[in-house]
Amino acid sequence: MAERVVLAYSGGLDTSVGIGWLKDATGKDVVALAIDVGQEGEDMEVIRQRALDCGAVEAVVIDARDEFANDYLMPALKANALYQKRYPLVSALSRPLIAKHLASTAIALGADSVAHGCTGKGNDQVRFEAAVAALAPDLISLAPVRDFALTRDKAIVYAAEHNLPIVQSKKSPYSIDQNVWGRAVETGFLEDPWNAPIEDLYTYSQDPAIPREATEVTITFTEGIPTAIDGKPVTPLEAVVQLNRLAGDQGIGRIDIVEDRLVGIKSREVYESPAGLTLIAAHEELENLTIERDLARYKRGVESKWSELVYDGLWFSGLKRSLDVFIDDTQRYVSGEVRLELHAGKATVTGRKSEQSLYDFDLATYDTGDTFDQSQAKGFIEIWSLPSKISARRDHAAGGSIEA
Amino acid sequence: MAERVVLAYSGGLDTSVGIGWLKDATGKDVVALAIDVGQEGEDMEVIRQRALDCGAVEAVVIDARDEFANDYLMPALKANALYQKRYPLVSALSRPLIAKHLASTAIALGADSVAHGCTGKGNDQVRFEAAVAALAPDLISLAPVRDFALTRDKAIVYAAEHNLPIVQSKKSPYSIDQNVWGRAVETGFLEDPWNAPIEDLYTYSQDPAIPREATEVTITFTEGIPTAIDGKPVTPLEAVVQLNRLAGDQGIGRIDIVEDRLVGIKSREVYESPAGLTLIAAHEELENLTIERDLARYKRGVESKWSELVYDGLWFSGLKRSLDVFIDDTQRYVSGEVRLELHAGKATVTGRKSEQSLYDFDLATYDTGDTFDQSQAKGFIEIWSLPSKISARRDHAAGGSIEA
Amino acid sequence: MAERVVLAYSGGLDTSVGIGWLKDATGKDVVALAIDVGQEGEDMEVIRQRALDCGAVEAVVIDARDEFANDYLMPALKANALYQKRYPLVSALSRPLIAKHLASTAIALGADSVAHGCTGKGNDQVRFEAAVAALAPDLISLAPVRDFALTRDKAIVYAAEHNLPIVQSKKSPYSIDQNVWGRAVETGFLEDPWNAPIEDLYTYSQDPAIPREATEVTITFTEGIPTAIDGKPVTPLEAVVQLNRLAGDQGIGRIDIVEDRLVGIKSREVYESPAGLTLIAAHEELENLTIERDLARYKRGVESKWSELVYDGLWFSGLKRSLDVFIDDTQRYVSGEVRLELHAGKATVTGRKSEQSLYDFDLATYDTGDTFDQSQAKGFIEIWSLPSKISARRDHAAGGSIEA
Amino acid sequence: MAERVVLAYSGGLDTSVGIGWLKDATGKDVVALAIDVGQEGEDMEVIRQRALDCGAVEAVVIDARDEFANDYLMPALKANALYQKRYPLVSALSRPLIAKHLASTAIALGADSVAHGCTGKGNDQVRFEAAVAALAPDLISLAPVRDFALTRDKAIVYAAEHNLPIVQSKKSPYSIDQNVWGRAVETGFLEDPWNAPIEDLYTYSQDPAIPREATEVTITFTEGIPTAIDGKPVTPLEAVVQLNRLAGDQGIGRIDIVEDRLVGIKSREVYESPAGLTLIAAHEELENLTIERDLARYKRGVESKWSELVYDGLWFSGLKRSLDVFIDDTQRYVSGEVRLELHAGKATVTGRKSEQSLYDFDLATYDTGDTFDQSQAKGFIEIWSLPSKISARRDHAAGGSIEA
Repeated sequence: MAERVVLAYSGGLDTSVGIGWLKDATGKDVVALAIDVGQEGEDMEVIRQRALDCGAVEAVVIDARDEFANDYLMPALKANALYQKRYPLVSALSRPLIAKHLASTAIALGADSVAHGCTGKGNDQVRFEAAVAALAPDLISLAPVRDFALTRDKAIVYAAEHNLPIVQSKKSPYSIDQNVWGRAVETGFLEDPWNAPIEDLYTYSQDPAIPREATEVTITFTEGIPTAIDGKPVTPLEAVVQLNRLAGDQGIGRIDIVEDRLVGIKSREVYESPAGLTLIAAHEELENLTIERDLARYKRGVESKWSELVYDGLWFSGLKRSLDVFIDDTQRYVSGEVRLELHAGKATVTGRKSEQSLYDFDLATYDTGDTFDQSQAKGFIEIWSLPSKISARRDHAAGGSIEA
Repeated sequence: MAERVVLAYSGGLDTSVGIGWLKDATGKDVVALAIDVGQEGEDMEVIRQRALDCGAVEAVVIDARDEFANDYLMPALKANALYQKRYPLVSALSRPLIAKHLASTAIALGADSVAHGCTGKGNDQVRFEAAVAALAPDLISLAPVRDFALTRDKAIVYAAEHNLPIVQSKKSPYSIDQNVWGRAVETGFLEDPWNAPIEDLYTYSQDPAIPREATEVTITFTEGIPTAIDGKPVTPLEAVVQLNRLAGDQGIGRIDIVEDRLVGIKSREVYESPAGLTLIAAHEELENLTIERDLARYKRGVESKWSELVYDGLWFSGLKRSLDVFIDDTQRYVSGEVRLELHAGKATVTGRKSEQSLYDFDLATYDTGDTFDQSQAKGFIEIWSLPSKISARRDHAAGGSIEA
Repeated sequence: MAERVVLAYSGGLDTSVGIGWLKDATGKDVVALAIDVGQEGEDMEVIRQRALDCGAVEAVVIDARDEFANDYLMPALKANALYQKRYPLVSALSRPLIAKHLASTAIALGADSVAHGCTGKGNDQVRFEAAVAALAPDLISLAPVRDFALTRDKAIVYAAEHNLPIVQSKKSPYSIDQNVWGRAVETGFLEDPWNAPIEDLYTYSQDPAIPREATEVTITFTEGIPTAIDGKPVTPLEAVVQLNRLAGDQGIGRIDIVEDRLVGIKSREVYESPAGLTLIAAHEELENLTIERDLARYKRGVESKWSELVYDGLWFSGLKRSLDVFIDDTQRYVSGEVRLELHAGKATVTGRKSEQSLYDFDLATYDTGDTFDQSQAKGFIEIWSLPSKISARRDHAAGGSIEA
Repeated sequence: MAERVVLAYSGGLDTSVGIGWLKDATGKDVVALAIDVGQEGEDMEVIRQRALDCGAVEAVVIDARDEFANDYLMPALKANALYQKRYPLVSALSRPLIAKHLASTAIALGADSVAHGCTGKGNDQVRFEAAVAALAPDLISLAPVRDFALTRDKAIVYAAEHNLPIVQSKKSPYSIDQNVWGRAVETGFLEDPWNAPIEDLYTYSQDPAIPREATEVTITFTEGIPTAIDGKPVTPLEAVVQLNRLAGDQGIGRIDIVEDRLVGIKSREVYESPAGLTLIAAHEELENLTIERDLARYKRGVESKWSELVYDGLWFSGLKRSLDVFIDDTQRYVSGEVRLELHAGKATVTGRKSEQSLYDFDLATYDTGDTFDQSQAKGFIEIWSLPSKISARRDHAAGGSIEA
């Protein structure tokens, strides 16, 4: 029996051609694996059949939407994960999930290799292969587009010559990756970072400039996880799907950024993540209410590191795992409700409450009932300022002055 | 001759009463010092005269608007300073400037003390006194409102009894601090963090919900500092003033947050900072274009620390000074132009360009002309993944599996 | 019935006098609580009786040595906790344990207050009171030495006048705090940081300058905890006690440092911690063998923060707790053996091995059997250097040169 | 005229054979560049002649000892640079200096390439090539040992066949890199990390176990740089040379560590750095005396990052440069004297003094003259503990207890 390779199959041109290409180049039988991470578009059964039509010896479809929401998006939400403060890691979150299924399918089916359709200058190749290495270190990773120089032009010719069932009649100008957490769009004219995005790029979000009434929504969180929207219980996946609609209809979630890729170059990226940005805004504010100052300050550094690790393809690394237990521990009190106004491209928190609140009205109020003992402040300030005062005395002794 | 105390004088009830109160409590002659940091409102000369009418032996007015913009706001902009990711440090930035003038005026006029009108439960008392301690360690800091329990009710009685020229006919429900970088508002009903802010709170920004045409603006930066708006040269102060109008007219700059005070409590704060948020958004994106990845990643941690230090009243500390030289060094290439769309409460960057850009079209493009050598990726990934692969082998030897 | 206060009782002059002093000043009945944290010296039953003789209505002794080793020293070891890279937190670790027993004893016995014998310029007052506040926020903390100005001279007079059974015939020049983790010594001549410590200061360690044969010892760790010494199973407490002897006999564990106190001043401190420094040296090297690079690098920052928090009295804070779960997670593979040579004041690791080792001989060797694929390095270096290369091109375009 | 390549030439077997090998493989004329970084051993003129005898068209010798000490070792000292808390970056510091001279020599002599003798599994290949990329991005880097698979066995055969003037009669078991900052030794039996180092490995340090009298030395620092030893002015190079002797004679400076290489593997390394460890010990303690607490705490994180960057070959990166300006700024007050006792493998600070000292005797003393106002402590502690107290109230409301 020929050796086998499990290919992450999207149903598009590159991976459809990749089936034959891999077989030709390696002699291995190709198993196609299509994962539903909420990317919508074609029916998964259609995609499965296409893989077989393109020469796969076997084609597997996995509905991983709940797994994606539960095990990948919720940790990202707890981490308020925004790479470069902006990008909610849309593709970076789906890659380790897909890699995990690639590896477990390969092991289950006795394959010695896995494959993906990424090029050699992006982040996703690293994310796939690093994840596979961390889960199944003896599997070989193949990347036909990169390793066998399978360019788009060659793919079109190959598909035509082999009568592959792929309609590529009119070349779309956009290169897109999407899942339930968001959408990434690349296209030629965006490669000049001075060019503004155009409305045509977006599908998850409506034009924020169109006048419409604001939407009010209340999200209930339980230990950092959304568990109800406007009082109705939801699963994590349902929360994301519903907020994509509510926030997307208000034009929320668009991101336009010059990004630092792991492979050392800067690229210009446009994303949409209506639910992602809305949930993070709400979650951060609930943390402001329920997490102690010093823990909150430290967690912000952990969040940056977490986001960088996940962006850099190190989802299954030891550091990422230990950061996760830290973050999980911080969420024990992050329960309560956040009310937001969604309008014109912006999700604005207008109220927050929690039975775990650390906001103490009696200490905070300037009204009657104030229990804060102001006389303590003097001693606090004196000791708080003491290092500055001591070094000021040194500086003055050295001839320093206020102007210095 | 009596000893002297220099009082930071705002012209409002508390500090007006504070003049007599300080004299009564300490026997010291009171010098009133009013600083113009762009807070607008009353004419500074009117304020000066009122101080004298309230019993000050001397009253000094200093126009510090350019100094404030140049020496306080620009460092904050270079640091993209947002405490808790949101608050642009409006009051936190003016306090050290005022304290510096308090200290230098006290030294110039032979005073042995300075005074401010803060209560004992806020951050500003710490900021004033810590700054004075760091600049003039032998000056005494007095806080009549806190130390002599000068409550608002007592102040009103005192003002009436002494015929002080203060019109406090109708008690405003708002407690406000403002300067050219923004405005902070506190009021009773906001003390419940579930209550939404109302339109009446805001004066720097128009209602973002009113339909209007978007405004496009291009900001030119030179080494991190805005030097032109729509091609017309501006000083830092002019940039801030102009953007307050342009962005404020679009409802930009509102912040509603539960905040961790230095004195250990959480408070709910509402701010406006139209120019602040707009400039930071533009500046961050220009940094994305011009600063190397590793430096940019590290700088984000420095920014958080800088913001916390300034929030915590440590403007004149040794650590703050050394972080400033780090930040200044990062700005050497942060020159170029950023185009923004201002609309409906949101400042959106739509284009960025720079002669110092690190974005390399030839490396980034997927089009012809691509110079990125994709064959290098394989070796990179192999070594990048090696630690994960080695530890995976250990885990598997210990009986781990993909599901683990 | 009078209200009660539980006093942390050492048996020494200050707290013995404190019993009567507290009663006089507050009218409260005093319960003395003596905790055995391995400080050795007097018999705990003698101390208990003295408390009663000094007027305590009740005197409780708790042997907390195993609790101290298990719940306080082992977390410190996992954190390689050295404040300012040097000080193993001797007193800082015992304070939260004592505070915990103060609080639980107070609650059990219906007391409304706790008390300690610290002065107002040290760290320990903060550690006691912050821990009590975090465990039993409604208890009142009293500090007779600080709050009632109970100076040493007054204490001696009081003890004589009241015939307290305290022999203070000859004033010892040393102020000492000690427990099984180490010993802190303060004394007048050390207050000049230019003066060298003298041999007389030390009791846990012998003079390292005396020639003697080296001692070899092998410590077995299981998930970060010492579980055997030279192959013989030990509890954490036994490990510490045995290593204090083995390492102390070789003069190991002395520390002489200018230290940054929490209350804003610098002080000069001399410590001994033979077992502490030896265990940390061994543990760090076992981590080098068994923890992945990126996790190890990040953990070093966590260790610093952990040490600062504990030094600063925040043992029971939310941040400390979340850092602990991070650290615990890192220890899952820190099992194995470390061989040390103990000699002349120095504990030197000479060998380490582990079934969880990440050291891969086949990858590391330069001999035959090398499995490292060197051809991968070129691609790695190319991409690793790419950001520097791109920015170098920018710099050169701007007229930069190698000399710049 | 043939193209030229400038080879970093050590005089040893690999680079001597590399001359011919490079010529054969690339057709380029080889220029040999030998840099004196204090490695001692052979006369540089002998090395220069050998390069010519081996076929170099030109051979250049540069005495870079002072440059190395001033521009590489002193920044490392200011950073207290110890990778993994232990390794003073001996080879990591010399590589960027050598790379800089490679690049400037290549440019001066019109070469298009540079070359080094490193293998493909170490850090030094990355350090050389990353530095060259950052300084002269258009130069090509060649590595004959790695890229042309020039193994040691092949090199011996080649040398014999070509009658190269290299005496390799008896293969030394040690692979060594050394410079004035220290010495790195690798050898077969050390590849088992359980094996102890043997005395024969060391040449910079005497056996610490031999009984001898202690040496006392006083080092004067000026802004972080050693400027006198025992009162006699020294240059940085002289300080390092003298302390290598003084500390080396006492067996100081040995390091034995399992190290995390940049290329993803762990290796076992043995180093000597008598002056390095001594200077860092002294410098750190002078910083303890002269740098404010918060700055000192932050600087420790900067030091780790600096050490990792330099270890990882990023000496000429933007982040490293900005960290340097931060570190330089911290050194403005690091002037004064440190007295050490050197004995039996250990450099122990016994005294420190400075006109820039922040140690304030009047605040620190427990004797008469104490100026610390202890009454301030109560207010400080109250506010310092407030976040813990507030969250304790929450926890208790949620049913928590002290045992929790």
